[in-house]
Order: sequence, then C-alpha cells, then structure tokens
Amino acid sequence: MSRIVIALGGNALGNTAQQQQEKIEHAAPALINLIKQGNEIIVSHGNGPQVGMINLAFDEGSKTDARISKMDLPECTAMSQGYIGYHLQKGITDEVRKEGKPWKTATVVTQVLVDPNDPAFEHPTKPIGSFYDGATAAKLMRENPGVTFVEDAGRGWRQVVASPKPVDIVEKDSIRSLLDDDFIVIACGGGGVPVIQDKDGDLRGVSAVIDKDFSAAKLAELVDAEYLFILTAVDHVAINYGKPDEKELWEMSLADAERYCAEGQFASGSMLPKVQAAMNFVRSGNNRKAIIASLEKAPDAIQGNSGTIIHQ
Amino acid sequence: MSRIVIALGGNALGNTAQQQQEKIEHAAPALINLIKQGNEIIVSHGNGPQVGMINLAFDEGSKTDARISKMDLPECTAMSQGYIGYHLQKGITDEVRKEGKPWKTATVVTQVLVDPNDPAFEHPTKPIGSFYDGATAAKLMRENPGVTFVEDAGRGWRQVVASPKPVDIVEKDSIRSLLDDDFIVIACGGGGVPVIQDKDGDLRGVSAVIDKDFSAAKLAELVDAEYLFILTAVDHVAINYGKPDEKELWEMSLADAERYCAEGQFASGSMLPKVQAAMNFVRSGNNRKAIIASLEKAPDAIQGNSGTIIHQ
Repeated sequence: MSRIVIALGGNALGNTAQQQQEKIEHAAPALINLIKQGNEIIVSHGNGPQVGMINLAFDEGSKTDARISKMDLPECTAMSQGYIGYHLQKGITDEVRKEGKPWKTATVVTQVLVDPNDPAFEHPTKPIGSFYDGATAAKLMRENPGVTFVEDAGRGWRQVVASPKPVDIVEKDSIRSLLDDDFIVIACGGGGVPVIQDKDGDLRGVSAVIDKDFSAAKLAELVDAEYLFILTAVDHVAINYGKPDEKELWEMSLADAERYCAEGQFASGSMLPKVQAAMNFVRSGNNRKAIIASLEKAPDAIQGNSGTIIHQ
Repeated sequence: MSRIVIALGGNALGNTAQQQQEKIEHAAPALINLIKQGNEIIVSHGNGPQVGMINLAFDEGSKTDARISKMDLPECTAMSQGYIGYHLQKGITDEVRKEGKPWKTATVVTQVLVDPNDPAFEHPTKPIGSFYDGATAAKLMRENPGVTFVEDAGRGWRQVVASPKPVDIVEKDSIRSLLDDDFIVIACGGGGVPVIQDKDGDLRGVSAVIDKDFSAAKLAELVDAEYLFILTAVDHVAINYGKPDEKELWEMSLADAERYCAEGQFASGSMLPKVQAAMNFVRSGNNRKAIIASLEKAPDAIQGNSGTIIHQ
C-alpha cells in the first residue's frame, strides 16, 4: 500500500458550482480506483478560477450594495476550501457508496505558513480569476492601485498575486491523525490559506495565493507519502513542446529534470511549477516519487502505463 | 473531564472579515478557559449574517459581471464554513500558543442530512443576511420570485429560507476521530451544509439553512457529549421577558422548559429554538445537560455561577 498525495488542478474543476459538481462526479471514479488498488489517498486541489470568482463577487457586490465589503484573498481562499471541499467530499462519498465501500472522507480547512521575506511578495506571478481583454485589464489596473494584470499564455489578461513558497502546514497533525484513522483526507485546498507568523507569534493571513503543486509537495513530504500525483490536462510531460521533435516523457530522473528546467523546456506558470514541485518532493526523502499525469489515467499512471514519473 | 459542544451565534461574529477576526480573538480566551478547566470542546457556529453576505455578493456581482453566477445556499454555507472556520482555528491556535499549551485545532467541512419531506421546506422561517427597510424588501421579492422576506422582531426586513431539522451528520466519524485524538474540533458551521439523500442514495445539497443550535444538539448527541453550551448575548434565559416580573432562570427541568414553551415564554426565531435545541439534547440520553449562557461567562456557567442549565 502506498500513500499518495493528489494535486487536482483548479482549472479542471470548472467555472460554476454546477460545472464543479459535474467535473468532480466525473473525477471521483479515478480517485476511488487508486484506493481500490490498495493505496491511501490525500486530495489537494487548486483554486485559481474559484478564488478569483469569489474575490470578484465581493469586489463587484461592494460597488452596488453597501452591506458587502471587499474580501481579502486569505478569506477568499478559506471560502474556496469550503466550497470545493464540500463538492469533493460529496462526490467522493457518493462514489464510495456506489462501490459499496466503508471509506469516509474529511475536508480539513488548512492554513499554510509562508515566509514574510519570501521574494515572491515583491513580484506577483500567480494568475487568479477570469480572463479579460487588454482594455478591461488596463481599466481595472487604473481603478485598483496595487492590482496587477498580465497577459497569460495567449489566453487573455489575468490578475496576478504573490505566490510565496509553503514553509509548513499549520494543520499537519490533524491531517495525519485522520490519515492514520483511514480517512480520505481533502486538505491544502487552493494551496492553503497563506499565513505568516508575526513577531508575537500570532498567525496572520497574507494577500497571496500559494501554488497548489508546491503545497501538495510540502503536504506529501509532511505526511511521509510515497507518491505525489500532479494531475493535469495532458497525459505526459513533454520536451520540445509544440515543436516538430516534441517528445512525451515517461520518466525523468532529478538530474534530467534539472537539465530540462535549465534548458527552458517547461512554460512558467504552467508545466514548470509542476515539475519543480515534483522535484521538491522527490528530493525530500528516499524512495519518494512524483507522477505528472492526466486525471483520467491516474490509475494507469501508478502502474507505469501512463504519465511521467520523476524519480531520484 | 466533560465533553462540551459549544454553539456560537453567527450574529456574535460581526459583519465583516475584520470584525469577525476581532470578535473571535475576544472569544478565544473563554473557549480556552473551558479546556483549562479540564474539558474537551467542540466548536460549532452559526452563519446567518455571513451566509447572507456571501449569497448577496454573488447575487449583486452577477448583475454587473457576466463571469459571476448566483451561488446556491449549500455552496454559500460551505464557503462560510471555510471563512469562519479559518478565523476560529487561527484565533484559537493563537490563544493556545499564548497559554503555552500543545492543543491543536481542526475545522471539518460538515454536511448535515435533512429529510426531503421536512415540513420546513413549505414554510421558510430562518432569517439570513442583512436587514432591509420594507420598501427594499418588497422590491427584492418582486425581482426574485420564490424569495421571501419577513419583518424580524422590529429590526427590519430579512430574507427567510427553509430551516429543516438535522437528521444525521455525514462527517460524524471524522469529527469523532479527531476528538479521540484530542483535537479542538470546529464542525457543523452554519448548522452544516444541508443535504438530502436522493433515491439513488446520492447526496444532494438543498436550498435551506439548518438552525445551528439544532445541529449543535445533534452533534452533541452523536459525539456523546455531556454538555451542550448554547452561547448567546444574554447571561440567562428569562421568563416574562420585558415585563415588570421578568425573571432570570438559573435552571430548568425538561418539564419546566416544556411548560414555559407552551406558555409562549420564548420568542420564536430567538430564544425558543435555543431552548428547544437544549431540550432535544437533554432528552437524547442520560446525564446530558444543556447550558444557555453568554460567551464571556461560559467558564463561570459550567461551574454553576452563570447561565441557565437545562436538565432532566
């Protein structure tokens, strides 16, 4: 039996509550298949579109109704953990019941500690929310000082916020406790609510979004997982992506991965952070492996029949 | 050592994220004092103002930005669990650290099963969200068919939704597991996300808000607590409330409570559901006691020096 931390992409969860429910119903069988193979799973997920939608709803609502205030990003991420966690645990519970299994699910609201001196705070890079055309993005930047939009891989303009690296997971003990009692745990949603520890030792939310793949890697390290599964829209990591000699990779050693990163093979904000998060986990201890694969083929990937495995 | 389920009022948590953090910082010492007395606590909370605010933000946002959709109540309650749970666990963790104690906190996203045939679905009674003047409420009802507003105890008009009774708590096992491992558990936020089981057995969210005191009573029953603490703005339950012969009660037997309810001593939507929830818990097993008290005096109340205790 292997302990597997799964990182699901927020983009794979759709843009509305109904889409999210449907996509999770579609995803649940693959997750359950991993358990039927004898593995233990911890589900982590992104929240890029969702935290952006929540943040935007409060922004827009505050313009027309004095009873609504703008909502800071840590609170928006906490909301997204409840919102996505509810659908995930409901969807997984339904699938487990169909399979006639006794497994139970629990979503843990998770704070993730970051370093207040992380250089990411000076250079916002993490896209959240919807895509806008250039003119609208320019208008939003004029109207909201401190807010930054950038052009995102040809898909339009998106707000970017600081994306500091996870240092520790505040709720790691409750996650471990539930795992030890055989629960399917959903944790670190949206990369976790980013908090810093102030000089009095108190936790304080900070306006940032932690990359969910890095948080999942930290979670996998702290729960002593054997596998980190980063699930995405493609079956394999590729080099020479989009070129005539594009090549899908089935496996990469850490040394291979370092070389490919140095060559600029992976797009920043897309495959690069996934590969880096995978490398972080593989480096963190012996016999730790990361797999980047598509959600549908996750059960195949763990048997070596799909995906890209990153190993020492 | 007694196991205590605490029901905190959503109204006591303020109307903005900043107010909520401050009020929780103020509340945390009383909660921690209960643990220092040797008790084990489970914290449940309401979400009336918060779920209304979230619901309204999406309603208003959807009018001005096509990227925002209206958000159904189950998802809004799930969001409020993340939002309030994050502040509670942060506030409690900070207070625990100040006390130099090793206690850990965990918020569990909680679904609560209700009966699809509950008569409450025909008669919405649970106030959510902000207060409006009569003219605005009338306009909102005209614009949103199916939405009901009622005049609330002289404080203005508020939306009301169905408030079915809790039948079971879907995540009861994860809550018990964390309690057994000595965690301070935050659960059943906002009365829990109301779900029904459809004829295929699948869970489905329903547009309703479960009364947090009834859910806390059900939770207390399912975790085999000795005390249900319903914390409110007053130190004691009173009879002949607001009259010259108003009398604060220090204790009530079930028989007393039944008589007072029959006499109409308690305001519906205010003290009545608290007393009824307390009675439900006391009736559910031997040696079960409920206390209705003010948050600040909770540690006094458990020692019999404040509050109203309801016993068999």
